[in-house]
Amino acid sequence: MSKQYSELNVGSRILMGPGPSDCDPKVLRAMSVQTVGHLDPDFIAVMNDTVELLRHVFQTENQMTLPMSGTGSAGMETVLVNLIEPGDRVLICVAGLFGQRMVDIAGRCGGVVETVQVPWGRIIDPGEVKKALAKGPYKLVAIVQAETSTGILQPLDEVIALAHENGALVVVDAVTSIGGVELRVDKWGIDTCYGGTQKCLSCPPGLAPVTFNETARKAVTGRRSKVQSWYLDLNMIQNYWGQERFYHHTAPVNMVYALREALRLVYEEGLDKRFARHLRHAGALYAGVTAMGLRLAAQEGHRLPSLTTVAVPDGVDEARARRDLLNGFGLEIGGGLGELKGKVWRVGLMGYSSSHRNVVLFLSALEAVLKAQGVKTPAGAGTAAAEAYLAANPLK
Amino acid sequence: MSKQYSELNVGSRILMGPGPSDCDPKVLRAMSVQTVGHLDPDFIAVMNDTVELLRHVFQTENQMTLPMSGTGSAGMETVLVNLIEPGDRVLICVAGLFGQRMVDIAGRCGGVVETVQVPWGRIIDPGEVKKALAKGPYKLVAIVQAETSTGILQPLDEVIALAHENGALVVVDAVTSIGGVELRVDKWGIDTCYGGTQKCLSCPPGLAPVTFNETARKAVTGRRSKVQSWYLDLNMIQNYWGQERFYHHTAPVNMVYALREALRLVYEEGLDKRFARHLRHAGALYAGVTAMGLRLAAQEGHRLPSLTTVAVPDGVDEARARRDLLNGFGLEIGGGLGELKGKVWRVGLMGYSSSHRNVVLFLSALEAVLKAQGVKTPAGAGTAAAEAYLAANPLK
Repeated sequence: MSKQYSELNVGSRILMGPGPSDCDPKVLRAMSVQTVGHLDPDFIAVMNDTVELLRHVFQTENQMTLPMSGTGSAGMETVLVNLIEPGDRVLICVAGLFGQRMVDIAGRCGGVVETVQVPWGRIIDPGEVKKALAKGPYKLVAIVQAETSTGILQPLDEVIALAHENGALVVVDAVTSIGGVELRVDKWGIDTCYGGTQKCLSCPPGLAPVTFNETARKAVTGRRSKVQSWYLDLNMIQNYWGQERFYHHTAPVNMVYALREALRLVYEEGLDKRFARHLRHAGALYAGVTAMGLRLAAQEGHRLPSLTTVAVPDGVDEARARRDLLNGFGLEIGGGLGELKGKVWRVGLMGYSSSHRNVVLFLSALEAVLKAQGVKTPAGAGTAAAEAYLAANPLK
Repeated sequence: MSKQYSELNVGSRILMGPGPSDCDPKVLRAMSVQTVGHLDPDFIAVMNDTVELLRHVFQTENQMTLPMSGTGSAGMETVLVNLIEPGDRVLICVAGLFGQRMVDIAGRCGGVVETVQVPWGRIIDPGEVKKALAKGPYKLVAIVQAETSTGILQPLDEVIALAHENGALVVVDAVTSIGGVELRVDKWGIDTCYGGTQKCLSCPPGLAPVTFNETARKAVTGRRSKVQSWYLDLNMIQNYWGQERFYHHTAPVNMVYALREALRLVYEEGLDKRFARHLRHAGALYAGVTAMGLRLAAQEGHRLPSLTTVAVPDGVDEARARRDLLNGFGLEIGGGLGELKGKVWRVGLMGYSSSHRNVVLFLSALEAVLKAQGVKTPAGAGTAAAEAYLAANPLK
């Protein structure tokens, strides 16, 4: 090869898609601190802080709480592969792409999978869960709290109660809610939960926080068969993240630096304040989008503050609009997936990206790119409505 | 919680253990560049460069070459989980911890595992491989090129030829050799190979480069059963890293930045120069250690330039010596594992850490910490011998 490679060069972006979100510069700075050994006493102190802070964002006392060495989907696989043994009956609630993904993974684990399905953009009806549970005992019931593919925030209380009546463990996907939307693992009785780092925690992708309560932990340690994944086997990994510090695999040291810093910033802000900030900016976005004559796609009353689906108006080339936002404004939003492909835009207001500035920028930029396609919206109506909403709903 | 958390704080280290190694500051700088979306055109350009550069360090034209989103052991699991189907017969060469790990993983994949074993610190004898292969056809033969637990560099040519005569695929673990020790995937006829980023590539841990030739790729795409891991299923992941850019999971964006930069630095230095540098500093280390009256533990003629095992002298508290090196000099080396626990130190000279400065520092520091335990070595003998070796063996 005689090709020349320059130093890294990527454009300046504002990330308002389905994740990753923008990172606080402090997080990027922490990540670039010199790598130390994965058994170094100083790294062990970093690990201890990280686990304590993870317990805080999960709102749990669970001993088995740690970041897995992979991205969010590795968290999903970790939970399912550790809990499911061949032949186990599992019930999975499917309201979008990430519910579907759980079905795929659970099948690969040898689970006998039943599903409860709803059209994308609506919540799972607890009545349907009840009906499915009547078919017999299940090892676990899995449900997505924050469906990144649809912008739905799923209520969990009834489903959790029904699952526990059945004797099933509850698995909650909190990839797009953790650190941005209320999530109380212990208080709500969630047995196992996993999150992502690159959404409301505003840390780069690369780790997957998971937590298991004692009942779920015993299901893992008391398995009849080996976990089919060595890399994700919590029976071994708990001895590295626990007191023993027994070597399993080399932890992604600098990613853990970044996560610790991201979690520290969440802790400093305070969870309740952070949830309120996400709600407030989502409210401003809803007001702005609606004032522009656009429609919100997710079921009313169950919209996810961190990720908003906006219906693409008739006649608009949605991919061109996204391209224009990226090229003209350095602004990333997401397109639709699966049933919603071509029908919605996905607009994230997550963590560091959930800001007054970003709401206003997005609404202004959207007005411009729609205008370029001949779609007229009342001039400045979006930003005016957003500002009015924010003025009427100050942060406490 | 009312606890206060400070910004990240870890000590200054020189990493001369079994990995991670020290990163070039340019790599840390690249890693801290702002995160962009995993489908951003600018990130796709970074991915393209990364794959091209990976092909260069693997010395391959293999289309299926990419970094998996996990640490080195995820690379091992990727290769085995994609190639092995339940009931497949596999032969694994075990000369240390990482061979053992392959046995564990292959079993979890449903493989029927046979092994060839040697005492830790010796190479695998091709004659033993031949005997084992006579027992019938195998799907694959797996072998570790650079055994990080023993400091052995395994010759591969005869084993590869024997495996191919048998009709088996060859799997090579190059975690501690890639980018530091000669490795020529295409020329040597390796079907599948995986590496680590945190050894001779001097990138933080967090990605696992893998490469599959056409025969191996067809074994993956033509499977009778689904890959049991969704997260590591190359049938899907190849569509994200290939032309289609089909979303699978969110790539660890900043880790890919770091890897691209680390690979770029390898490319700029040139592979042959880099291998020569590793050999030369290892030679200086051997000369120094021997001049101090210590013994090299790995089989002569088959020592791994990137990782040297030094026998702990009788009466020395090896853990105390490592602690003294860390606390007194900020210098990390590794202890022994498995059969070699308590018997050896593992001294890495990998990538950015493979430097004249580090050889001299280590020998001086080792003299001091041995002296503190009452072990006398001729004053300055180690560094003098190392300097003499380096003077007699200039870099061309």
